[in-house]
Amino acid sequence: MLNISADNKKMFLYQEVYQYYRELILQHRLPAGSRMPSLRKCSQELHLSRNTVENAYLQLAADGYIIARPQSGYFVTDIAARPQIKASSSRAEEPAIRYDFASSGVDRGSFRFDLWQRYIKSALRQDDRLLSYGEPQGETDLREALSDYVREHRNVVCTPGDIVVGAGMQSLLHILCPLLAGRETVSFPTPSFVQGSTVFRDYGFSVRYRNRDSDVIYVSPAHMTKWGEIMPVKRRLELIHYGAEHHSLIIEDDFENEFVYLQKPTPSLFGLAGGQNVVYIGTFSRLLLPSIRISFMVLPSSLQAAYKEKASFYNQTASKVEQIALARFIRDGHLASQTRRLKRLYSQKLKGLSAAVQETFGETCTLQAGAAGTSLALTFSCRLTEEELTDRARENGMRLSVLKKEGEKITLILSASSMPAEDFLPACRLLKKITEEAGR
Amino acid sequence: MLNISADNKKMFLYQEVYQYYRELILQHRLPAGSRMPSLRKCSQELHLSRNTVENAYLQLAADGYIIARPQSGYFVTDIAARPQIKASSSRAEEPAIRYDFASSGVDRGSFRFDLWQRYIKSALRQDDRLLSYGEPQGETDLREALSDYVREHRNVVCTPGDIVVGAGMQSLLHILCPLLAGRETVSFPTPSFVQGSTVFRDYGFSVRYRNRDSDVIYVSPAHMTKWGEIMPVKRRLELIHYGAEHHSLIIEDDFENEFVYLQKPTPSLFGLAGGQNVVYIGTFSRLLLPSIRISFMVLPSSLQAAYKEKASFYNQTASKVEQIALARFIRDGHLASQTRRLKRLYSQKLKGLSAAVQETFGETCTLQAGAAGTSLALTFSCRLTEEELTDRARENGMRLSVLKKEGEKITLILSASSMPAEDFLPACRLLKKITEEAGR
Repeated sequence: MLNISADNKKMFLYQEVYQYYRELILQHRLPAGSRMPSLRKCSQELHLSRNTVENAYLQLAADGYIIARPQSGYFVTDIAARPQIKASSSRAEEPAIRYDFASSGVDRGSFRFDLWQRYIKSALRQDDRLLSYGEPQGETDLREALSDYVREHRNVVCTPGDIVVGAGMQSLLHILCPLLAGRETVSFPTPSFVQGSTVFRDYGFSVRYRNRDSDVIYVSPAHMTKWGEIMPVKRRLELIHYGAEHHSLIIEDDFENEFVYLQKPTPSLFGLAGGQNVVYIGTFSRLLLPSIRISFMVLPSSLQAAYKEKASFYNQTASKVEQIALARFIRDGHLASQTRRLKRLYSQKLKGLSAAVQETFGETCTLQAGAAGTSLALTFSCRLTEEELTDRARENGMRLSVLKKEGEKITLILSASSMPAEDFLPACRLLKKITEEAGR
Repeated sequence: MLNISADNKKMFLYQEVYQYYRELILQHRLPAGSRMPSLRKCSQELHLSRNTVENAYLQLAADGYIIARPQSGYFVTDIAARPQIKASSSRAEEPAIRYDFASSGVDRGSFRFDLWQRYIKSALRQDDRLLSYGEPQGETDLREALSDYVREHRNVVCTPGDIVVGAGMQSLLHILCPLLAGRETVSFPTPSFVQGSTVFRDYGFSVRYRNRDSDVIYVSPAHMTKWGEIMPVKRRLELIHYGAEHHSLIIEDDFENEFVYLQKPTPSLFGLAGGQNVVYIGTFSRLLLPSIRISFMVLPSSLQAAYKEKASFYNQTASKVEQIALARFIRDGHLASQTRRLKRLYSQKLKGLSAAVQETFGETCTLQAGAAGTSLALTFSCRLTEEELTDRARENGMRLSVLKKEGEKITLILSASSMPAEDFLPACRLLKKITEEAGR
């Protein structure tokens, strides 16, 4: 019933050659620097076509096992000597971090790489679409999938035409800010969100904090503090009312709304306001991979005309391949199931981290946890300054993020997102040890 | 000598199942809307593991052949009925374009998709790197590859630390403009480059054209006109001298420098100026795929301090996967060989298009061709207005780009980049016919 197609056979052969040389290289039987046999020689010896051997060599080169030198052939790299491929050579000199409490990365088990790879591969096969520039506003199929998704999950009712796609929140603000002519002041909930305030400052806005008397009010209702406090519905309604009355435009950055654990996700401001006077910004860096740069915004009707006029002046910034892949990923229901998985995962991890902190620090500390997010706020007495503590931690292979130091009390933000759960207890013990040594 | 590894066998099996169902669906033997057998049933029938079948189904879903409906299973889509997957549903109503003289896309045969796919696949396997955000300045290995590349090919001598990576030229200008405090005027060579001037206007710059008496002078030395005129070395040196004397910062957008046919590529302004007072911008949209959003700029020493201060405030916009892939692609010499291939290809295509125009229009037209690029300027007499001509062309399945209309003379920019060479003659004949009908 099943037949092996000719195509499959060919792929299979080149992979055999690939595997064969890969093994030889990893076992140092073909040492670093040695020359690979020429394509002609190799194909004769293995009784294979030159094409098959070349395919294998190209894959070996793409994976870093060999390297092509013009006019002289392929040579084995030092990949076998390296424990793993270095992400960044500039960081090689820093001490190795064993426990990272300051990470903005995601859990290793949180993302189905195999699944995403399928969608990327499939998108890469759409030659026709990839030969041209992307639509300035974002690929239509992605905007269609997004408008369905936010209607169902975030009570944001909009058409694909209301959505603008960009490579991250800043790329969207670079399109949004020029549409806000006549507005001069913007309020942010906290000075720590420099990525947002920088863009507004660059456009000449005066930036304030927690000052509602501003032309633009930027809020993250599901991420009010670094330890995940969320904005109650009552305050959301007040804010919308205030914005409408004072002609203050509200920008709703829906960051981490998916990780609201203690209750049903609260409704979006955009939805509560009926799409009036609110710009909704959504992002996937926490849901998929931080390295996938796709965000989107939903514009209220009041900004549509101004955007339409300038839309074609802005090139799309997000990768077209990733947009195509994401559109199908959402359509096939994977974003919804990924969200459910992550919510479960991070909720459990926060409980685990909380328990590890309490077991280690006992009653000598205060622990704050919000209704959402992937971090806790830990406060305890410590004689060290912020800098001394983070330096000492780094020397001990730990990365820390200090929120504030007031008197003897220091508050850390402990991120549970990328640290494996089995590291919580040893990490907390090491942290205790570092602060105790400091006390002596 | 060669052994089939267990991994390969597994991949092979799921692909067989995939191929099998794919065929059934494309041959309408499994019609649209029909339910796929359950995983359990299918694995029993085929004597395969549930996992193998699930892998095949997931791939079929990723490729659009089937779709998952929660709680009810997989269903066949209408993919077999569609001639091909639509890029954009909003464009479906427009008349089909048979001949596109206005395209900014690239030649179908110009890009080795198979090769790029390998590098993307390899990059996708670097889980460790993909779980975290990208470096704000761009991945280190990419900046290393780029600094080697521009030193060798564009006489731009710089370190990886001088390079900033972003998702396209506009993303780079969004980082650059805020560094230019105190500068208020910018000169562009032509009003048609709205993507550049828009960003400067958004930041409050006063935009002028061909006015050297400006704080910032933006030039594209290899793309002075749409038909590929280049800036002679003498004028390059004059410009550098002028910039240094009048403290005007020069931004060198090195767009299409690779496609300088009639001579060796002229040296970059950055190189000629010894890296002083010139920002160099390079892009890959014409060399690789327009849909790959990676550009880079090399900052002169005078801007380094200002950039370093703000670097961490800007998130990276370019896809990390594509950055990793591109770094290796360049390192393995593929960018250099791709450039050679494209130069040959587009040079031949321009000759072919030129010949087709001359055969069709004879002495009734004027043809302008520069030393670079992928387009020609065609001038002839035509009673129609710009709009009438482009509308009539569109009704006949042709897309045109009009440069200007002066009196009876109309000038078109004919792009040879994405049109197959065999279409040149029929396309020119159709163009002639459209304009002749208009003459009656």
